[in-house]
Amino acid sequence: MGRQELLSRLAQQNERRIVLLVLDGVGDLRTDAQPRTALDEARTPNLDRLAARSSLGRLVPVGTGVTPGSGPGHLALFGYEPTSPETDIGRGVLEALGLGLDIAPGTVVARGNFATVDGEGLLTDRRAGRLAGAEGRRICARLASRIEAAGSALGDGIEVEVHPGEAYRFVLLFRPRAGTPPLDARFADTDPQQLGVAALPVQAAAGAGESARRTADRLAPAVAALQAELQDEERANTFLLRGFSKLPALPGVGELHGLRAAALAGYPLYRGVAKVCGMEIVDCGGSFGQILDRLEERWDDFDYFFLHVKGTDMAGEDGDLAAKVGAIEAVDALLPRLLDLGPDVLAITGDHSTPVPMEAHSWHPVPLLLRSRDCFVDECSRFTEVEASRGAIGTIPASDLMGLLLANAGKLAKFGA
Amino acid sequence: MGRQELLSRLAQQNERRIVLLVLDGVGDLRTDAQPRTALDEARTPNLDRLAARSSLGRLVPVGTGVTPGSGPGHLALFGYEPTSPETDIGRGVLEALGLGLDIAPGTVVARGNFATVDGEGLLTDRRAGRLAGAEGRRICARLASRIEAAGSALGDGIEVEVHPGEAYRFVLLFRPRAGTPPLDARFADTDPQQLGVAALPVQAAAGAGESARRTADRLAPAVAALQAELQDEERANTFLLRGFSKLPALPGVGELHGLRAAALAGYPLYRGVAKVCGMEIVDCGGSFGQILDRLEERWDDFDYFFLHVKGTDMAGEDGDLAAKVGAIEAVDALLPRLLDLGPDVLAITGDHSTPVPMEAHSWHPVPLLLRSRDCFVDECSRFTEVEASRGAIGTIPASDLMGLLLANAGKLAKFGA
Repeated sequence: MGRQELLSRLAQQNERRIVLLVLDGVGDLRTDAQPRTALDEARTPNLDRLAARSSLGRLVPVGTGVTPGSGPGHLALFGYEPTSPETDIGRGVLEALGLGLDIAPGTVVARGNFATVDGEGLLTDRRAGRLAGAEGRRICARLASRIEAAGSALGDGIEVEVHPGEAYRFVLLFRPRAGTPPLDARFADTDPQQLGVAALPVQAAAGAGESARRTADRLAPAVAALQAELQDEERANTFLLRGFSKLPALPGVGELHGLRAAALAGYPLYRGVAKVCGMEIVDCGGSFGQILDRLEERWDDFDYFFLHVKGTDMAGEDGDLAAKVGAIEAVDALLPRLLDLGPDVLAITGDHSTPVPMEAHSWHPVPLLLRSRDCFVDECSRFTEVEASRGAIGTIPASDLMGLLLANAGKLAKFGA
Repeated sequence: MGRQELLSRLAQQNERRIVLLVLDGVGDLRTDAQPRTALDEARTPNLDRLAARSSLGRLVPVGTGVTPGSGPGHLALFGYEPTSPETDIGRGVLEALGLGLDIAPGTVVARGNFATVDGEGLLTDRRAGRLAGAEGRRICARLASRIEAAGSALGDGIEVEVHPGEAYRFVLLFRPRAGTPPLDARFADTDPQQLGVAALPVQAAAGAGESARRTADRLAPAVAALQAELQDEERANTFLLRGFSKLPALPGVGELHGLRAAALAGYPLYRGVAKVCGMEIVDCGGSFGQILDRLEERWDDFDYFFLHVKGTDMAGEDGDLAAKVGAIEAVDALLPRLLDLGPDVLAITGDHSTPVPMEAHSWHPVPLLLRSRDCFVDECSRFTEVEASRGAIGTIPASDLMGLLLANAGKLAKFGA
C-alpha cells in the first residue's frame, strides 16, 4: 500500500487547524565565502522562542542531490510523490499557472517562444533576440486577431487562446468546448533545439499512439496558420512550442485527507499548484502582512492553510544575503500575529533551498520547524540549518510532511489494532 | 528484490543468540507540561553502562506520522513490512489472538459486539449498554448452547465456536473440519455503524467475488439462528459482527532467516503475533522476572528470543509517568540476569511510543539500543529518546531491524562478491 493510500485510509476529521508556512527557498549554505547562512544571521526573537518549544528537522524535497523546481517542491510539501507520473505538471501547464490563467482539466497548454527564421524558413534565433515584454504583448495581440481563423481550422469544438508571458514567451491554449471529447496532449516539442533547421510541425510524441496522432493532425494546420500571420515581422517571424500538457488529475487534499484547505499566496504559480491539489485560493497580496490579513479573516473557514512567502527565494536568486536576512526578519516580526490565531499545528519550512552563493535553487535539505501540543520538544534553540540537522524529526522526505502534520493534528487514526 | 527476499537469500546459520527485548510503548515525549521523558527520569545504572558500549538509534514503526497498533508494531520488529496486504492481521484474528485462542490457518474469525434492537429489529444500542464481563460470559454460554444447531445449519464440515471477550465483546469462530475446503473470509461487517436501522446479514464484501458470496449464503442462516436465540434478552438481544478474517499466511522467521525463534510474552496478543511469524511460544508470566526465569531454562533451545514487557505501555496509556519510570527501573534492575546469559546480540526497543502526555500509542520514533561484538560504539551514554536521536544507527524503519540483528549475529552472508 502506498503512503498516500495509507494516510487516506486513516483519515479522520476534527476541528484542529494546521498552518504550513513556506518560506520559499529559505535553506542556505555555509561556504568558504559565506560562513553563515541567512537564518544564522537573521535576528529572529520570535522564531527563536518558537524553536525552543518545537521539533526541528530537515526535509529532502525530491531526493538526495535532486534540485526541485517550484512545482515538485510544493507537490512534495502537500504530500504528493513528486516523481510519480501522476503528479507530473508539464511546462505548459506550469507556465499557464504562473500567469494566473484558469485552465480546465481538459485544456491543452503549450509554452511558446517567439523565434526568428531566415528567408528559407531555417531558424536563426530561437528566442527572437529575447524581445522585450511590450513587443511580446504586441505580437500576442496580433496572433489573437488570427485566433478565430485558427480556431475554425480546428472545427467548432475547440477554442484557441494566446496569452503573453515574460519577454519572448507566451502560452497557447486549446480549450475543448462543452461536449467535445478531451484532447490528447502527448505532442513533441516543435522546437528542434538547434539553429539552421526548420521548426517542426505539431506531431505526436514518440510512442504516444493513434489518438495523439489524430489530434496532432488537427492542431498542426491551426498552428501553421498562426505562424504564417507573423511572417512579415522583423524578428518574431515565427514561434516554437514546448511542453504540451494538461492539468494532472490529482486527488485533492480534501478527498485524500478530509482537509478543508486554503492557499494564501501572492504569486500565481503557487496558487496554481495549490489549486491542482484541491485547495481553495484565497486572494491576497504577496507580503506576509497581507497574507496574515486574509488569514485572520478566513480563519474559521478551513482547517489547513498553506501560506507562501516569496521574498526569501527572490533574495537567494539575486545572491543578496542582506535581502534574504531582511525577508526572514520581516516574517519574524509578524510571527506573533500568526501565533495569536492559535494554530494547533504549525510547520515552517521551504519548498527547496535557494542558497545565496549559488543564486539558484539547490538540492540541499531544507530546515523544518514543527510545533504542536504533541511534538517532541528537542534541544534545538534556533531555526537554522545546523540546528535543524540535529532536531528530533531527523531528515525525512518532504512528501512525508503531510502525514506528520495530520498526525500532530489528530487527523490520522491508528493503523491496525 | 524486496528486502525480506534479499535477507532470506543471504541467510546463514550459526550458534549465536539474538535477544530482542521489547519494552512496549517505551518511547515518550518532552512537552511543555512534561519536560523530561520516562527514560530521562528513570535511574538505570545497568542500561546506562550498556548504552555506553552500544549503538543507539531510532525506529520508525510503520511510517512517518503513522501510529501503529500492536499488531503492525510487532510485525515490523520481526522484519515484516507492516503495510503490505500479506501481513494484514484482521480485527477478528487479532481479537482471537488476544484471547489466546488457538486458531488454525483456515479458521474464519469475527469480532462480535452484543447489541440492542427494538421491537421492530432496529438498533438502539450498538454495545448493549456496554454490559459487564460476567453478563457477556453468561450470554456467550447461552449462545454456546445453540452452537450445535447453528453448526448443523452449516452442514457437517464446519464447527462454530463462541468465546467471550472483554465486556460486550466476543469472538465467533468458523472452523472447517479436516477435509473441508478452506472458507472464504471476505465478508462485510454486519454492523451498520448507525442506530435506527437493522443489523446487516452476513454478506460478501464489495468485490469479493463468487466464492465469498457462496460462503456468505451458508453462514448467514447460522448466524441468524444464533441471533434469534438472544431475542428475549433485555439488552443483549442481538449481536453485530466485524472484522471477518483468517490468519495471514506468512513465511515464518525460521523459513526466512533460518532462526529457531522463541517468544516469551505474558499477554496473549503478543504471543499470537509471534506465532503468526513462526515463533515457538514459551509459556511464562508477564513480569520481566518470570520471563527471565523461562529464558534461562530455555536458553540452549533457540537462537532468537523475543521478550515482551507490557508495563511501560500500560503506564503510558494510564498517563502515569511515575509508573512508567518504575517499569523501566524494574527492567534495569533485572538486566544483569539477561546479560549474564551472554547474548551475542541484544536489542532493546519498543513497538511504538506510548507517551504519557498523550495516554495513547503515537507515531513518534522509538529509541533503539543494540549491543554486539561488532556494533559501532557511539558517543551515547544513556538509553533515552534524545541520545538515541544522535546514535550511530540513525533513524531507520522498524522493519529494517531484523536485518541488523542478523548481521550483528553473523547470520547474513555477504551480498555479491
